[in-house]
Amino acid sequence: MEEKIERILQNVKPLDRTAMDAAAKHQSRLAKPPGSLGKLEDISIRFAGITGNLYNAINHSRIIVFCADNGVVDEGVSCAPQTVTAAQAVNMTKGVTGMSAMARYFGCELVVVDVGIKTSYRCAAVRDCNIAKGTKNLAEEPAMTREETVRAILTGTGIASEAAQDGMDVIGIGEMGIGNTTTSSAVLAALTGLQVETVTGRGGGVTDEGFKKKKEVIENALKLHEPDAGDPIDVLSKVGGLDLAAMCGAFIGAAACRMPVVIDGYISIVAALCAARLCPDAAGYFFPSHCSYEIGYNAAAKELGFDPWLDLDMRLGEGSGCPLAFEVISAACAVMNGMATFEGASINDSYLDEIRKKDNFSV
Amino acid sequence: MEEKIERILQNVKPLDRTAMDAAAKHQSRLAKPPGSLGKLEDISIRFAGITGNLYNAINHSRIIVFCADNGVVDEGVSCAPQTVTAAQAVNMTKGVTGMSAMARYFGCELVVVDVGIKTSYRCAAVRDCNIAKGTKNLAEEPAMTREETVRAILTGTGIASEAAQDGMDVIGIGEMGIGNTTTSSAVLAALTGLQVETVTGRGGGVTDEGFKKKKEVIENALKLHEPDAGDPIDVLSKVGGLDLAAMCGAFIGAAACRMPVVIDGYISIVAALCAARLCPDAAGYFFPSHCSYEIGYNAAAKELGFDPWLDLDMRLGEGSGCPLAFEVISAACAVMNGMATFEGASINDSYLDEIRKKDNFSV
Repeated sequence: MEEKIERILQNVKPLDRTAMDAAAKHQSRLAKPPGSLGKLEDISIRFAGITGNLYNAINHSRIIVFCADNGVVDEGVSCAPQTVTAAQAVNMTKGVTGMSAMARYFGCELVVVDVGIKTSYRCAAVRDCNIAKGTKNLAEEPAMTREETVRAILTGTGIASEAAQDGMDVIGIGEMGIGNTTTSSAVLAALTGLQVETVTGRGGGVTDEGFKKKKEVIENALKLHEPDAGDPIDVLSKVGGLDLAAMCGAFIGAAACRMPVVIDGYISIVAALCAARLCPDAAGYFFPSHCSYEIGYNAAAKELGFDPWLDLDMRLGEGSGCPLAFEVISAACAVMNGMATFEGASINDSYLDEIRKKDNFSV
Repeated sequence: MEEKIERILQNVKPLDRTAMDAAAKHQSRLAKPPGSLGKLEDISIRFAGITGNLYNAINHSRIIVFCADNGVVDEGVSCAPQTVTAAQAVNMTKGVTGMSAMARYFGCELVVVDVGIKTSYRCAAVRDCNIAKGTKNLAEEPAMTREETVRAILTGTGIASEAAQDGMDVIGIGEMGIGNTTTSSAVLAALTGLQVETVTGRGGGVTDEGFKKKKEVIENALKLHEPDAGDPIDVLSKVGGLDLAAMCGAFIGAAACRMPVVIDGYISIVAALCAARLCPDAAGYFFPSHCSYEIGYNAAAKELGFDPWLDLDMRLGEGSGCPLAFEVISAACAVMNGMATFEGASINDSYLDEIRKKDNFSV
């Protein structure tokens, strides 16, 4: 089954440099001081590299939320009970959680996927791809088998591929899983070698005692399992979770389908980092959204070379940064598609010459 | 005429604390870790304080762009010729500039107001409120008379009041005026006492020589005119511009009409600071949008106590941060209006008790 992942990774192609050069050239002709639309310019250029087209738009967007429980909550690392994972997965399908209320307002489709919820629930609207009723407690044993991890990754690639087939112009990757800031910090520390202290935050709002315990649990698990930083599947198996693995798969799947994919917050960016470690070219298809309040976010963003667009002090997860990120990408498209060039804008020729001289792009 | 400004200032009432307390209480009941939606929570609470209602929405939004020329460009402080002000004012009405392409996409109304364009143009879609054909060169004499400044402020208050009458739920304040990063830095330094060096950037992209000159011109003008930091109208008259004065008026006018008003970038936030100095209660009605790339933006934001939402390295002006800021406010409304409470979300009672204990708000 791991060979199937290999085949998908080989389908991930680098961005289209010719289309990106054409987009950069077009940006330089738009009637504005060069670079004055900052990241919106970069987005439009990368979007062109993804689709191969100069003009792009987001007409159909989908947020995919992977839900799973984590055995490590037995250690008291979270303030919320495990039943919240199932309850909120169901609530998302009703559009009444933070992310889903926004998705509903902005007209984003939503797919909620159970890859490992522990608690029983009855809700046909949650997609049943359950691989295990929660992971094992990583404080005592590896969270998952390698085979479970591979299955979760392939679940993610499949769901992303389905979104591309359904005509989505972009997807966003969210999660719901009590305890998953703990697994994310463990995976991030394992992949980067960063100190646990510097990548571990309070998540949903754990107590002082719980926070201390959370860091100890991660430290000890890394010592116990010795995950191999060069093998992201090993890292995910030992100290990750089913949600993280499926999200990692969705990032890869989107890249393999040449579809832009938006990173939400902390857990999402750790999954994106796993995907980029499995396949560096995949990262060209990823877009950041907001800067999570969780301390580890910035470390992961730096590893990926991403600078987020929204600074809203959010730390909800669920994919809550995605609806607004889709609007930012749409704004970038609106500029690319709707602005006049200097020639069309009747801007004085000497100014145009001046701009051209200073131009970073070759015109 | 200055008495008219006084009367409008007296119409600016503090935010409705009762509505804000009710909104904060409601936020604390929504099914999420307290504070996990960060600034979106703050926005919804302040929006309630503005309208007096718990539930709000943006159905109608308008961007108002004040256009004017600045005599100081004679000193070589800008890389673009003055004709660009008129050309871009006209182009905005066609929806082909950076901001207006976004406004068109997002369905924001747009009003382009000539308060002081120098160059002749023919375009009925630009609102003619011209007070002078550009200001005087502040390097040699005060930019405006006090009477001109007051007229520009009242033009702004009138245009904002009209937006409220037209049923706008929010307005955004932009500008077009070659040379207005120079006037903005002069006004900001005069109001705050900050060093010119620390609040002056390159604007549209002036050369090294022009940049040095820009800072010298501002230093010398402040010494020459000695604007009174305690009298924002004096500051605007001596080292400001017709655009800044009209924008300042629009911020005050929006507050007087209890209408939220969005600050765009650097020039816009300096105008907002003038408005807040004239009337501290007015600032309760202001919302930031993006963090401008211009160096002085942060100093002005700090003075106002605002922390922007979008970090896009933009420095275009025009009101280009407003369309996305309206979407951020809409996201905040979607959360407030659409999320279930803990009771409605079937979240485990013990978790609810836990949350309540840690709650910052009184429940």
